[in-house]
Amino acid sequence: MHNLYKLALFLWLFASQSSNAQNGIVVFQSDFGLKDGAVSAMKGVAMGVSPALKLFDLTHDIPAYNIWEAAYRLHQTVPYYPKGTVFVSVCDPGVGTERHSVVLLTKSGHYIVTPDNGTLTLVAEHLGIGQVRQIDEAINRLRNSNQSYTFHGRDVYAYTAARLASHTIRFEQVGPKLPTEVVRLPYQKAETANGMLKGTIPVLDIQYGNIWSNIPKSMIDQLDIKPGAMVRVQIFQNDQSLYDKSVTFVNTFGEAPVGDDVAYINSLLNFSIAINQGNFSEKYKVFSGPDWRIVLSKASK
Amino acid sequence: MHNLYKLALFLWLFASQSSNAQNGIVVFQSDFGLKDGAVSAMKGVAMGVSPALKLFDLTHDIPAYNIWEAAYRLHQTVPYYPKGTVFVSVCDPGVGTERHSVVLLTKSGHYIVTPDNGTLTLVAEHLGIGQVRQIDEAINRLRNSNQSYTFHGRDVYAYTAARLASHTIRFEQVGPKLPTEVVRLPYQKAETANGMLKGTIPVLDIQYGNIWSNIPKSMIDQLDIKPGAMVRVQIFQNDQSLYDKSVTFVNTFGEAPVGDDVAYINSLLNFSIAINQGNFSEKYKVFSGPDWRIVLSKASK
Amino acid sequence: MHNLYKLALFLWLFASQSSNAQNGIVVFQSDFGLKDGAVSAMKGVAMGVSPALKLFDLTHDIPAYNIWEAAYRLHQTVPYYPKGTVFVSVCDPGVGTERHSVVLLTKSGHYIVTPDNGTLTLVAEHLGIGQVRQIDEAINRLRNSNQSYTFHGRDVYAYTAARLASHTIRFEQVGPKLPTEVVRLPYQKAETANGMLKGTIPVLDIQYGNIWSNIPKSMIDQLDIKPGAMVRVQIFQNDQSLYDKSVTFVNTFGEAPVGDDVAYINSLLNFSIAINQGNFSEKYKVFSGPDWRIVLSKASK
Repeated sequence: MHNLYKLALFLWLFASQSSNAQNGIVVFQSDFGLKDGAVSAMKGVAMGVSPALKLFDLTHDIPAYNIWEAAYRLHQTVPYYPKGTVFVSVCDPGVGTERHSVVLLTKSGHYIVTPDNGTLTLVAEHLGIGQVRQIDEAINRLRNSNQSYTFHGRDVYAYTAARLASHTIRFEQVGPKLPTEVVRLPYQKAETANGMLKGTIPVLDIQYGNIWSNIPKSMIDQLDIKPGAMVRVQIFQNDQSLYDKSVTFVNTFGEAPVGDDVAYINSLLNFSIAINQGNFSEKYKVFSGPDWRIVLSKASK
Repeated sequence: MHNLYKLALFLWLFASQSSNAQNGIVVFQSDFGLKDGAVSAMKGVAMGVSPALKLFDLTHDIPAYNIWEAAYRLHQTVPYYPKGTVFVSVCDPGVGTERHSVVLLTKSGHYIVTPDNGTLTLVAEHLGIGQVRQIDEAINRLRNSNQSYTFHGRDVYAYTAARLASHTIRFEQVGPKLPTEVVRLPYQKAETANGMLKGTIPVLDIQYGNIWSNIPKSMIDQLDIKPGAMVRVQIFQNDQSLYDKSVTFVNTFGEAPVGDDVAYINSLLNFSIAINQGNFSEKYKVFSGPDWRIVLSKASK
Repeated sequence: MHNLYKLALFLWLFASQSSNAQNGIVVFQSDFGLKDGAVSAMKGVAMGVSPALKLFDLTHDIPAYNIWEAAYRLHQTVPYYPKGTVFVSVCDPGVGTERHSVVLLTKSGHYIVTPDNGTLTLVAEHLGIGQVRQIDEAINRLRNSNQSYTFHGRDVYAYTAARLASHTIRFEQVGPKLPTEVVRLPYQKAETANGMLKGTIPVLDIQYGNIWSNIPKSMIDQLDIKPGAMVRVQIFQNDQSLYDKSVTFVNTFGEAPVGDDVAYINSLLNFSIAINQGNFSEKYKVFSGPDWRIVLSKASK
């Protein structure tokens, strides 16, 4: 009787299998929080377009107006959804001004509906730009919503994403094709220099207070830093030094005593630092963003 | 192959198309928060009734016992869901006492399952009362739950909503018809007097700290206040003045310098005031509820 | 036309009706919070396995590393989902160390995918252990994830749960059968002694600040404590007394004045204490965990 499941799955896969075909999944991200009805209203609009859609959340706790963090959360999450998934990201301090409302189709086959204000920086860099289209708001806009100036997330982005994800419109019907580029936020990339590794702290692992860098495992490997070795870690905000210590590089937290500072490779395969079962960010007042620098070098035991 | 989607959609729409027919969508609101298992247990009960239901959240961060805010969030969100959607709202300081457990069918075709304690005030006013039925708890109650006195949200409201939304019962089977009225909370309505507009602050735009009034755009238009004009805004808590300033009325925040106080029309088409990229509520200690008054008049540049 | 719903439901039930057959529902719990993309990535992985799955949350606000609370939230919620539901619980301070990754099939027909570190203590006690299998990570692991050491929640637990729930693998294909036991956290059970009832405070009703004990209604009944009666309640942290008062035992909060301390039976049918419309935990600095004791006896009016 499991054949019934298999039949349903087969039909779905058959309908979805053309390259980049939308798969009926919509994932929402915003800086709206969940204390009022804003996120729910976006989902209501999507259900009004098609009750067959499957709706999920990325996060709605992007700090207000923090485009960089919106960009980072997309980068962290988009690749784990199947291709054909449509994302909506609304972190839009310039709502109503002259930034473009766009849909990006990445080379990996994911769609992202968003104001083009820097939110696409990291997804464009890591997944590649397939095509960019500007949303034609004359047709892709919830009926009777044209008197409202401030809730594009509901009236344009959620509505367009739902129409696209449900095959109500084809990608070409979103609006005119734009040049194959998006607005990009400047930031310090990871680099090697004189046996040292330099990078930034793009984001914290907030729940635990761990520090994530943008220095990849491959650079750590090149410097021949192995589990059990000591690493000198320096952290600066602009030119002020906030941390300078040699810490053990571990495979898993379980290898170190509770309360110790430890260096490790995180789930995105980047160099990270934490206190085992403690909060590094709170203890050392280290936070994230383009004004933070991290510098690594090999240390002796 | 998109025809498969169209077929599924057609079948769904066909099944749903009789007037006000339930559409299989249930939306939950409460003051339970999301830190324990209460909300999840309600959804488990609904899945036990029918795994074909589609379950969403409005918000579960209604401040504890704040019936007014529960009423406001429904008002803000219900109209964006398709008709036939069933809402559950549980903000119930009087649980177990003699308030009625009801299902309201609005004139707009939405169902709301809730204790009738004032939660329906604004939905009744704006969407209209179609019919009110009292839940017959002898039949619409989770099996084996009759020893528990305190979790109506799970045992009665979620259970009844799921049965109604899944066509397990018809609306008539909820229980006996009540008079076409609901319990209403008193509050100050918007009014014009001597060239001034008066109203209340029904709710904050919490995430950003913006102040929302209940004064509609149409009254602003009547006073001939246009984008770019100055408006004198006075805010009182009871008789204490907390704010008295002339601010610019803008179409979009992008028109004003960062850090400026600005007046604007919000996504519900009501007069609102904010600090561009700042938190008005925190800065001026202005909050919401029936004890807050706002008074507007035209000001010169 | 409701027959269409009935047909869909019938087919689903038919496919699900063999004993303990997975029902396509997956429920996620963790200590990750919802501020980043971790929970969403787990759901993306599940959608990649089968877009027909129905995904829900228990809570993601388990305090970091608090295995006891993870155990309690499962106990509180699992029984309200239909049998065949697959739960994922990731509260895993020992990630990457030598605890087993397991799937428990309870005697009640629920599946729980988790590190076996104590998380299963209360579910095993209350629902019974049907079978325990160790996850064979050589086959039940997201492709290309083997370079990452730290996100078992996404790469192993969510992936395995989705494959199990979607009938992609049978329960036997999870991995080898383990002895019919799980790791259990020690805690003080409820007991009667010399006309007094003793127990612990396993958890708070956080949103309201109410105190929940593990003393069941049946023991209260044995002591012949009836609604309206007075109960002496003593609360200790280790050997320090923090509360010693006689309070009224009520059926519903509505029976007591606002602001009064009241004793009642909670939705899990255990003895509890609260301030009517107030926060008991904050006022008396009473919290939860194995170091808290509560002692009850009959008091005169």
